[in-house]
Amino acid sequence: MTRRLTSWIDSANTADTDFPLNNLPCGAFSTDDGPARCGVAIGDRILDVATLEETGALAFGGALQTGNWTRFMGLGPAAWDALRSTLTTALGEGGDTALAAHLVPQAAARMHLPFRVSEFTDFYASRHHATNVGTMFRGAENALPPNWLHIPIGYNGRASSVVVSGTDIIRPHGQLKGPNDDAPRFGPSQRFDIELELGAIVGQPSNRPISVAEADANIFGYVLLNDWSARDIQAWEYQPLGPFQAKATATSISPWIVTAAALQPFRTSTPERAVPLLDYLAEPGPMLYDIHLAVGLTPQNGTETIIARTNYSEMYYSSAQQLAHHTTSGCPMRVGDLLGSGTISGPDRDNRGSLLELSWGGKEPLTLPDGTTRSFIEDGDTLTLYGHAQAPDHRIGFGSCTGRILPARS
Amino acid sequence: MTRRLTSWIDSANTADTDFPLNNLPCGAFSTDDGPARCGVAIGDRILDVATLEETGALAFGGALQTGNWTRFMGLGPAAWDALRSTLTTALGEGGDTALAAHLVPQAAARMHLPFRVSEFTDFYASRHHATNVGTMFRGAENALPPNWLHIPIGYNGRASSVVVSGTDIIRPHGQLKGPNDDAPRFGPSQRFDIELELGAIVGQPSNRPISVAEADANIFGYVLLNDWSARDIQAWEYQPLGPFQAKATATSISPWIVTAAALQPFRTSTPERAVPLLDYLAEPGPMLYDIHLAVGLTPQNGTETIIARTNYSEMYYSSAQQLAHHTTSGCPMRVGDLLGSGTISGPDRDNRGSLLELSWGGKEPLTLPDGTTRSFIEDGDTLTLYGHAQAPDHRIGFGSCTGRILPARS
Repeated sequence: MTRRLTSWIDSANTADTDFPLNNLPCGAFSTDDGPARCGVAIGDRILDVATLEETGALAFGGALQTGNWTRFMGLGPAAWDALRSTLTTALGEGGDTALAAHLVPQAAARMHLPFRVSEFTDFYASRHHATNVGTMFRGAENALPPNWLHIPIGYNGRASSVVVSGTDIIRPHGQLKGPNDDAPRFGPSQRFDIELELGAIVGQPSNRPISVAEADANIFGYVLLNDWSARDIQAWEYQPLGPFQAKATATSISPWIVTAAALQPFRTSTPERAVPLLDYLAEPGPMLYDIHLAVGLTPQNGTETIIARTNYSEMYYSSAQQLAHHTTSGCPMRVGDLLGSGTISGPDRDNRGSLLELSWGGKEPLTLPDGTTRSFIEDGDTLTLYGHAQAPDHRIGFGSCTGRILPARS
Repeated sequence: MTRRLTSWIDSANTADTDFPLNNLPCGAFSTDDGPARCGVAIGDRILDVATLEETGALAFGGALQTGNWTRFMGLGPAAWDALRSTLTTALGEGGDTALAAHLVPQAAARMHLPFRVSEFTDFYASRHHATNVGTMFRGAENALPPNWLHIPIGYNGRASSVVVSGTDIIRPHGQLKGPNDDAPRFGPSQRFDIELELGAIVGQPSNRPISVAEADANIFGYVLLNDWSARDIQAWEYQPLGPFQAKATATSISPWIVTAAALQPFRTSTPERAVPLLDYLAEPGPMLYDIHLAVGLTPQNGTETIIARTNYSEMYYSSAQQLAHHTTSGCPMRVGDLLGSGTISGPDRDNRGSLLELSWGGKEPLTLPDGTTRSFIEDGDTLTLYGHAQAPDHRIGFGSCTGRILPARS
């Protein structure tokens, strides 16, 4: 396991910062209502790399002048490595302290979507999650669909609904029909939920089937991802063509893209296979990462309770396998495609990455410290995802991915 | 029913041209390997409206200089009406014959995607199609899913896979598992198919739930759409989250956007409702169009056979209803969103808009005039969609939407 790299920026040298010199995640920030600018997090600061390119200290053909990281990602791995290497030296001990002029306090910055989301695909690839949901929806004997152990099951989501952490989420309306209702009605979702996921960001295009190794190399980095889900809308609409409006209200992502390069020391393997996978899904090495994940729930005017803890290593399929599968049909992939891992649940009750699972479909509500209970999200609740990879003396953190639920439109 | 408007361009004045002065569809063309330019079809010519804007004869703030119609659509209905009105006068009898200098023969032009596809949604909204497919997949007693008469069922497709008519389509690979196979295998699809659809193009954005009337007003125009579908991949992958790689190889669209304005005289109503629809789906007037549709199949080195004829008026839900439903959750819609109607089938066998239905899942293959049979598409086959609305003395045509199937990658 790697050691913490020391920076001349003190706040980057603590054991509990999400953003030590080893991390260097990419985001888009603004100050004083100015336009979004490319920045890199370091300790409690943001290095304004857009200005550094303007001054000639960095040279990526203007890619850092676009207000987000899409064009930079399109430059490819050599550029990704060059930026990381340059910043590691410049921000390290003995580096270029004149860069202090280009550091902005994170507390003074507003964060924006770090890339243009080309298309959004969501997967269903945590075995505990699929088993839990399948048991509730189809019974224990039909919990895992017959294809699940063979295919990284995915569906296309809605890119226009992806928002950056901190954006308020309006409770959706939709068609609702309970099992005992004669007919559907139209109204606000009563079973609005989170999905704790990691999002992989495609940084290089492809227009033919690619291998798992190629797919892994095309992933620029990862974000926390909360795929807000209306379970009551979903239950009525999802047969036979899958979720649609239940998943189209919003998907929140964390503002900092943690690069695959920063996560490299935390590689871990997918689990032993229950049945052999087809050759095109074979992994050239460990393709998951050991990333601790947690979900916090904060009632309006209340304090936060951590309601779930799990780990990205619980996935049955890696993002690289998902991306490789995504290309099998010849489907063109583009820079900025976002691949949701699928809800990540572990084996125990408090490892579950959705309220649907945590409350077992509402049958076993959670009790919060203030004495109130939750089966699903209440208006005014704030839900926050956290994630970090842990080394002995530092962590590679994602920051947080948060959203507050506002009442449905009247 | 309207009369044919007479143009000073003779080829626009025949009863069988797809592009009389009443039509004026919008496309993107190039000649001699130049860049794509905005053009409007008239008879057998294309009016180069990009050049007209350069010369000052048209003024849309440079929107026609972008090589496609996305920015122009974003200008909104007043601009749409202004362009149509200006061109109707200029190309009409007594109009501006000096524009002849800006006419390009369609035969000399290469066509491109007429707009940037933001996202692609595909619906499942023809009752005959849903009944046919449901009967084959789930049995006659479960043919229509319980939600089908209440919801315009849709799923998100893959915008990156949308191609313009004329693009060759490579037969996809995928996971395949027949009902009697022990395990899936990976190989070329053996049941590759068409879906005869109309595509509606969203020309104005929205970020809240909108009414059917608002949705109708936001639709700029329509194209023919062939959602190539691998039935064997679909059968194995689609439960529980819907089609994914089965529909991601390609979706072909015709190069000319026929505007809603041009189709206005051909309005027709959706059918009587089997059960009442919820209020948010109520239509303010006739929302469908009477558009004749046909599918031609041309074997390699062979001649074309029309294998199906149907009509867009067979839809149970209109594009306006589909778009309104799409916004119920708060899902943001953007200029350039493409909404596939879903496969359009009529009541009779030769009205079916897919080979899956025409051959009844391969059990009743079609026999072509050359004596060969087809259950699904063979390598080298060219499939072509045709569409037009018929007035007594003219037609509003879509041109064609064609694609040839190449063998799977080796």
